[in-house]
Amino acid sequence: MARQSLQLELAERPTGPIIPGKTFRQTRIDAPTEADLKDGQVLIECLYVSLDPAMRGWLDDRRSYLPPVAIGEVMRAAAVARVLASRSKKAAPGDIVTSLMGIREVAIVGEDKIETAAELGVKLAKAGENGPRVTDLLGVFGLTGMTAYFGMMKIGEPKAGDTVVVSAAAGATGSVAAQIAKIAGARVIGTAGSDEKCRWLKEELGLDVALNYKDPEFKAKFKEATPKFIDVFFDNVGGEQLDMALGRANTFSRFVMCGGISQYNATTKSGPTANFMNVVTQRIKMQGFIVFDFAKQYPVAREQIGRWLAEGKLQRKETIIKGGIAGSEDALNHLFQGKNIGKLLVEVKNPEEAPRL
Amino acid sequence: MARQSLQLELAERPTGPIIPGKTFRQTRIDAPTEADLKDGQVLIECLYVSLDPAMRGWLDDRRSYLPPVAIGEVMRAAAVARVLASRSKKAAPGDIVTSLMGIREVAIVGEDKIETAAELGVKLAKAGENGPRVTDLLGVFGLTGMTAYFGMMKIGEPKAGDTVVVSAAAGATGSVAAQIAKIAGARVIGTAGSDEKCRWLKEELGLDVALNYKDPEFKAKFKEATPKFIDVFFDNVGGEQLDMALGRANTFSRFVMCGGISQYNATTKSGPTANFMNVVTQRIKMQGFIVFDFAKQYPVAREQIGRWLAEGKLQRKETIIKGGIAGSEDALNHLFQGKNIGKLLVEVKNPEEAPRL
Repeated sequence: MARQSLQLELAERPTGPIIPGKTFRQTRIDAPTEADLKDGQVLIECLYVSLDPAMRGWLDDRRSYLPPVAIGEVMRAAAVARVLASRSKKAAPGDIVTSLMGIREVAIVGEDKIETAAELGVKLAKAGENGPRVTDLLGVFGLTGMTAYFGMMKIGEPKAGDTVVVSAAAGATGSVAAQIAKIAGARVIGTAGSDEKCRWLKEELGLDVALNYKDPEFKAKFKEATPKFIDVFFDNVGGEQLDMALGRANTFSRFVMCGGISQYNATTKSGPTANFMNVVTQRIKMQGFIVFDFAKQYPVAREQIGRWLAEGKLQRKETIIKGGIAGSEDALNHLFQGKNIGKLLVEVKNPEEAPRL
Repeated sequence: MARQSLQLELAERPTGPIIPGKTFRQTRIDAPTEADLKDGQVLIECLYVSLDPAMRGWLDDRRSYLPPVAIGEVMRAAAVARVLASRSKKAAPGDIVTSLMGIREVAIVGEDKIETAAELGVKLAKAGENGPRVTDLLGVFGLTGMTAYFGMMKIGEPKAGDTVVVSAAAGATGSVAAQIAKIAGARVIGTAGSDEKCRWLKEELGLDVALNYKDPEFKAKFKEATPKFIDVFFDNVGGEQLDMALGRANTFSRFVMCGGISQYNATTKSGPTANFMNVVTQRIKMQGFIVFDFAKQYPVAREQIGRWLAEGKLQRKETIIKGGIAGSEDALNHLFQGKNIGKLLVEVKNPEEAPRL
């Protein structure tokens, strides 16, 4: 019997949260094979799928930085994969690559749609104890790591002594952004949704303050934690936390507009409210960005992140769901339920327990 | 009998709109005289008071770019005044100066609190037919003109062919901002609150499109007027118009956050809502500013504006209320009732019908 490939297809657009069994359809097809390859293509099998809040936005039919996933289409997702067969000089069977291959087990993709570890600029020799793992290709070296790096470095531009606040600081992007601000010498405050996450932020990542936004005293503690106001706010949450940050914004502060997870599932979207006019009165620069805009500079960022990893200056955590493609549908909602710490991944095939590269 | 000086003092902080007879108190005092002057001071009498939406913000007791006007204090306002007596080398009796002297007829101010026409860099020789008038010192050469200039030039940075939208385009700031964008070669759309204002914007100022926001078809027309989306949005209004602009924002567009007149009197403040996440997805730079930050560069701006005036490239209109200090209280609300076209001024003393300088 031919190898089967399970894939997750968009069945209908959600208006609120993703509804398992309704939003997506799981389809098992005959996997493509080496015989199906054309010149310049590779046959790959998925090892880990990256699950990210931004994926919720890809389901909405509205003007954005990427077209929405079409009904019936395989759900778009970044993955780390192994090459099974190749008609490309770029990759040989056995190579580990990343690709926006979608949530499926096996796929044929063009060589322009893959990046090899070497291309990613991941320095293996210098890796040492904290060296890169396969899953880091989706995490600190992947889109979330790049997002954190460029958002913080190019828009936030933290200086020593600045007060930097990162919302959703225990997420894949937030946790890297917060540590980059620490490396820059800033006083860093992170917000997260559980005491466990806050402990990780303070004890492992070395943040100065970590605040649980579910704490009834959150607002008062947020104010107390920002006596000199906020110089950089790296926002992954939007809504009320953004408004609070605006209320505590320093003059000439930079608001790195990275995401708004509080709004992705909301049927009635809201933005900042009571404190929005502080954009004017405090001369705030609020700037949105998409990581793809910095694609040409990824190698520089990866080299720096690789150095920080090797020097032990950068920590990362992964929450790995073992349910395979079948479990990815439910796992996607973990992001909005705050279940993950650090990078959320679905393991589709374990290449000997995510070995060092 | 000693000369009397009428002044407008803050009686209580308004929670919504300014309430004539309640928010302020009109007090008549013995005017200060030459005998009261100390070294470095000048005795001035007010000719015109500048009325600006930002003044509403000065009444709220919240952190801002200036401390709030204190209860019992003379209401802060810019004015053009004539020097009656001087113990300063900076100005002689008869000189025309501008000063943040507040809403009152006669005042003693320090020489550091006045600017003379010469200091303003207003080039009289090149003035010609469109040459500067006394009232222009508060308008195109004053804070509203400077606001328009620096907001548009330094943050908006319109390029030829850009689509630029200016909200409250018939106001003192908006009308100058819109014309600067036209001079830069942009396609310029202005919003305003009456058909009369829209006619002025199109027929006199040469805007490409002028839209009355009270038109039931405003939303549809706004969309229709921005087929290539918005590259620069110069916002004086906030709220719903800002949200509409976000919905039509182009990638990498610049949002010049100048003011939000729709919110100043609101008891429950609101910001952008449904389209706020476009800040991220369209990579918008939303930047607030306060004109005072550019104070050192005012001379450059005034020289340029003087040239544009002389060349007939820049038009301006004034709405002058003749009620004197007594009428200024009611006149302040004209701003929020949309009664003024262009610069709103209160004439306190007419120096022979606002002569050319």
